[in-house]
Amino acid sequence: MIIITRYDITDEELDHIRERVEAAGLHTHLSRGERRTIIGCIGDEAKLQEVPLRSLPGVEQVLPVLKPYKLASKEFAANNTIVRVGANASIGSDVLTVIAGPCSVENRTMLHETAHAVQSAGATILRGGAFKPRSSPYSFQGLGKQGLELLAEVRAETGLPVVTEVLDTRDVDVVAEHADMMQVGARNMQNFALLAELGRVQRPVLLKRGLSATITELLMSAEYIMAHGNHQVVLCERGIRTYERATRNTLDVSAIPVLKRETHLPVIVDPSHAGGIADLVAPLSFAAVAAGADGLIIEVHPDPESALSDGDQSLNPAAFSTLMERIGAFAAAAGKTFEVPAVAGGRGA
Amino acid sequence: MIIITRYDITDEELDHIRERVEAAGLHTHLSRGERRTIIGCIGDEAKLQEVPLRSLPGVEQVLPVLKPYKLASKEFAANNTIVRVGANASIGSDVLTVIAGPCSVENRTMLHETAHAVQSAGATILRGGAFKPRSSPYSFQGLGKQGLELLAEVRAETGLPVVTEVLDTRDVDVVAEHADMMQVGARNMQNFALLAELGRVQRPVLLKRGLSATITELLMSAEYIMAHGNHQVVLCERGIRTYERATRNTLDVSAIPVLKRETHLPVIVDPSHAGGIADLVAPLSFAAVAAGADGLIIEVHPDPESALSDGDQSLNPAAFSTLMERIGAFAAAAGKTFEVPAVAGGRGA
Amino acid sequence: MIIITRYDITDEELDHIRERVEAAGLHTHLSRGERRTIIGCIGDEAKLQEVPLRSLPGVEQVLPVLKPYKLASKEFAANNTIVRVGANASIGSDVLTVIAGPCSVENRTMLHETAHAVQSAGATILRGGAFKPRSSPYSFQGLGKQGLELLAEVRAETGLPVVTEVLDTRDVDVVAEHADMMQVGARNMQNFALLAELGRVQRPVLLKRGLSATITELLMSAEYIMAHGNHQVVLCERGIRTYERATRNTLDVSAIPVLKRETHLPVIVDPSHAGGIADLVAPLSFAAVAAGADGLIIEVHPDPESALSDGDQSLNPAAFSTLMERIGAFAAAAGKTFEVPAVAGGRGA
Amino acid sequence: MIIITRYDITDEELDHIRERVEAAGLHTHLSRGERRTIIGCIGDEAKLQEVPLRSLPGVEQVLPVLKPYKLASKEFAANNTIVRVGANASIGSDVLTVIAGPCSVENRTMLHETAHAVQSAGATILRGGAFKPRSSPYSFQGLGKQGLELLAEVRAETGLPVVTEVLDTRDVDVVAEHADMMQVGARNMQNFALLAELGRVQRPVLLKRGLSATITELLMSAEYIMAHGNHQVVLCERGIRTYERATRNTLDVSAIPVLKRETHLPVIVDPSHAGGIADLVAPLSFAAVAAGADGLIIEVHPDPESALSDGDQSLNPAAFSTLMERIGAFAAAAGKTFEVPAVAGGRGA
Repeated sequence: MIIITRYDITDEELDHIRERVEAAGLHTHLSRGERRTIIGCIGDEAKLQEVPLRSLPGVEQVLPVLKPYKLASKEFAANNTIVRVGANASIGSDVLTVIAGPCSVENRTMLHETAHAVQSAGATILRGGAFKPRSSPYSFQGLGKQGLELLAEVRAETGLPVVTEVLDTRDVDVVAEHADMMQVGARNMQNFALLAELGRVQRPVLLKRGLSATITELLMSAEYIMAHGNHQVVLCERGIRTYERATRNTLDVSAIPVLKRETHLPVIVDPSHAGGIADLVAPLSFAAVAAGADGLIIEVHPDPESALSDGDQSLNPAAFSTLMERIGAFAAAAGKTFEVPAVAGGRGA
Repeated sequence: MIIITRYDITDEELDHIRERVEAAGLHTHLSRGERRTIIGCIGDEAKLQEVPLRSLPGVEQVLPVLKPYKLASKEFAANNTIVRVGANASIGSDVLTVIAGPCSVENRTMLHETAHAVQSAGATILRGGAFKPRSSPYSFQGLGKQGLELLAEVRAETGLPVVTEVLDTRDVDVVAEHADMMQVGARNMQNFALLAELGRVQRPVLLKRGLSATITELLMSAEYIMAHGNHQVVLCERGIRTYERATRNTLDVSAIPVLKRETHLPVIVDPSHAGGIADLVAPLSFAAVAAGADGLIIEVHPDPESALSDGDQSLNPAAFSTLMERIGAFAAAAGKTFEVPAVAGGRGA
Repeated sequence: MIIITRYDITDEELDHIRERVEAAGLHTHLSRGERRTIIGCIGDEAKLQEVPLRSLPGVEQVLPVLKPYKLASKEFAANNTIVRVGANASIGSDVLTVIAGPCSVENRTMLHETAHAVQSAGATILRGGAFKPRSSPYSFQGLGKQGLELLAEVRAETGLPVVTEVLDTRDVDVVAEHADMMQVGARNMQNFALLAELGRVQRPVLLKRGLSATITELLMSAEYIMAHGNHQVVLCERGIRTYERATRNTLDVSAIPVLKRETHLPVIVDPSHAGGIADLVAPLSFAAVAAGADGLIIEVHPDPESALSDGDQSLNPAAFSTLMERIGAFAAAAGKTFEVPAVAGGRGA
Repeated sequence: MIIITRYDITDEELDHIRERVEAAGLHTHLSRGERRTIIGCIGDEAKLQEVPLRSLPGVEQVLPVLKPYKLASKEFAANNTIVRVGANASIGSDVLTVIAGPCSVENRTMLHETAHAVQSAGATILRGGAFKPRSSPYSFQGLGKQGLELLAEVRAETGLPVVTEVLDTRDVDVVAEHADMMQVGARNMQNFALLAELGRVQRPVLLKRGLSATITELLMSAEYIMAHGNHQVVLCERGIRTYERATRNTLDVSAIPVLKRETHLPVIVDPSHAGGIADLVAPLSFAAVAAGADGLIIEVHPDPESALSDGDQSLNPAAFSTLMERIGAFAAAAGKTFEVPAVAGGRGA
């Protein structure tokens, strides 16, 4: 921690600041410039976390030296983490991973149909919501436990591991039982009770960035899960809230290389929520892969016009298949591999 | 709902859009201008909520006519709501209500001391955190149930009703048992599982605006609680996230008159979190009252320099008392009454 | 300047950074912590301004110690600046100054009428646009030089000094000749060619904060004018751009106390542009005065419904007069004086 | 224009609104729903532009039907525009165009060196600043007219057309004389006096998006230039201002496909200013090309560490060359062609 003092600081104020820092177990080191005195605080910065230095008389700025996260930091990891999802899939290797499926599990038929379609187009993980966070209490809230059972059934049939969202601490066990990866939605990124609970379960977590969360806050939420014992965390950029109204959110594509520099955890992108409309899914997917994403999570519905949620941003199977056929060239240019399954792949198969 | 079509829409596309709207049970009404055809959708707009109109071929814009909230809307209420908190306090009347107390309940002594200090300065509700949402897993997380018991104890002694935050659906009952009002923090404003649970309890809820929540979203979260059965909701503006870095958040003072126009629910302001530093609490409090707030919630600590959380933005009792002595003139100018208790009031008492 | 190095910095990288700093004429001072080495740069920080330290290998963060502005800073001024406008008005004293008038000068009649109305209600400076910055090339662009002449004419008649906007470096002389204060609009806050030109003229400048300018950037634009020779600068907060859509802009009321702490220059608020709609002008004006503003600038039009620009946010004379009658109580509570003229004041006069 | 009225509108208010609309020369058409009456305004929407409808009593919302831009709109153009720059370059065709060069022209040697380096790596247009907009009055302000002459000299030698920024209406002629394309910087995007002046010159304009400009505002600024007679406008996304602090700006990659849908004008991206640091230039360039950009503008300096401006974000020639070697694969995947010159290309040439 570095403390920059005000130009008009008194000696008493300076002494008082030093005492507060030293009382927390750190040493102080003064550096007097022409117009400012700087106090370097040497020792365990975490011990100063709760000391209210900024409001002490004579203080102008307080500048942390260390990042607030440790377990999530590249600094503390020998290698990049590869998160295994189910028996056959993983995220973070040199293969581009595509997760696809409907926003909500609506019924058995549509889930089966979607699962087969996305699998044949190249997706290796199935998404589908059973518990839905809806901003209106009057909207469809998901099938709940029945949705989880349908997901498990389709997994058994297709071999696709499944990821689904968990909203409530009370549902963590039942979701962990039925799903291969548990998703934390953007609106719950700082639901610390939920993060702590997910830290106690041994299932990978897909952690979505909050609508206005900084990259540091996203990493602190990952740290929260990891500090409670679960190190299998995948980060997901899904668009942030800005003043721009032409798109539902603004995809922060720069977050991908920044996260790749800061953390060893895998990073994927959700182009469906970022753009909010089907036409933007393909260009945003290409941009994400070009910028170095480890994977994509895309909403696909057999008939978007009749979807019970997120129909505007869902692709139909044909559009998804077209996107998958083009994505390989971008993946290759970015140094990743991606293949559409040989037998079933493509529209002509 | 009004649908504006693209300039190059085909007749087939137009027919298809009308069919989708009519299939949802509404009537359509065409209005052809020189460059655009407009489709008016007449009937229950809520039925179109889940129909993905924006992505239909030929659609340029979809414009809702009605607000998405009903119970929270002024349109559906005869009078402004006054929320009673405990036996003696209320929010939303022509009296300015001040809630004050420490960020966290740290121990019995500090809580007693703070409660008496804020009460003698004019606060009529005590705040204090037992369950703390902390962005770092390594920070003080609150005393939990023990904190709730200390709050109840101090309430019995002082007569001050208490408000405290609830983070986890599993804690709603125990918090409702010990507190007079339950707070939803900014980070949980769209924790819909929690909102639903609070809707089932008959205790007033203090709902804080999310860091990047729109005013409409804040009202939708109030609607969520109300739709589940609990109509005693107080809204709290606490600063929003913007690009400006000179303050922790940007107090959206305009939200006060906008909310007063849109809803019958009371509106209070949290100047401590909005500014993030003690020096800003007084001017932001004055601004909030001048703009028409029904109350304030202010962090006070007997010794901010040793606070376990939020010390930078906490006032000490003397600064709080000075603020209270000045607030009455602003309240009077704004048409509210506020009095510092006669016997105990002021620093000289 | 303080440089925080990466955890994996090599000795060569460290030496290279020190050489770069020392080549700029500063000394370096190393402080080695457990996980990071910190390089303190001692000497004239301005000399490092152009040295690209952030991209040097081994650098993690570069933290400036000093503020980038000097002439605008409180640190370098003995007293707060009071800017005199014309013979009788000033901004920054203990009197609250109200500037009022139409968005655009439309014709002689409306300008005369408005000037008399705002003067009798308590305004002491007249505003009115001759050159209008319009986001559409198809909108009314102002009367230009003729508008300036009308302003000068009304000034001669009423004794009210006038403020008007200047858009083009080529117009600075003619505007300075006709007006008592020259306004820089929000969209030109970083039009450095214009700022430099205004620095060469001895006329007060009303500098509006850009739509997404930080407080530091606003002060740097003031510095720009001051560094070119003109120290008579008044700062104006007029709402910033955020994600919130319920208001045209978000009034950053916190900017008032922050600017009061950082600079000796006067600070006023434009509630008309901040809210964008007439109903919000009064509550935002009250909030601004309560937070410590030195003045207000308010759009008034004799018949807002027929205004050629900004009609939605203009007050009619009666609404302005009502606002003025109420503002004194807020001013008094905030420690300022404000009086409606005795003879002509009030609607009944 | 569509007007949605308040639920409690009176008949008099409704009549008054209709009269205002009809007085502007449009027809009105009422549509009464259960809870709201909607007024459709049929005729030339531009005539309502200046009528303050939002503040009329009884009005809840005013919704424009048409986009405010015409000349810039795809709706009014038969084909996408290809802007020719100098004799040999163009932007907007199926070739990816790369503009590169130093932030500032510092002297003859560095400009020559950079021009040859970027040309041999595949750039076809040279950038270089002669007039520099600097946020500090104490920073290097550019070589001015001498810089323009050096640019013209290097153009003559290499055959590379040049683009350079113009800041002041008084400099438009001299810049047009020396440069092949004139740049409007982000901070001048709404400097309407400058836009009007550029509209009167027959030289292509490179228009950068303002730091917090919406896509619609960017198009309106293009419209401003076009309405004054100059239709050769290239749009440039260069990062927008958000709350995120890990990057200097947030590259709004979604703006590329949105602009491609809305306008016939070419769209390029500036990854140097978007990211603000050299390491981000490559991934952001790849993302921009993948999302469909027509070109890139990249800062290159022979020795970034000694650059007089923007050194942190400038690439050295080797890094630029590496980037160029990789960009072709992304361009090909996106349907564009790009070739590094055969003879001189690559590091091994």
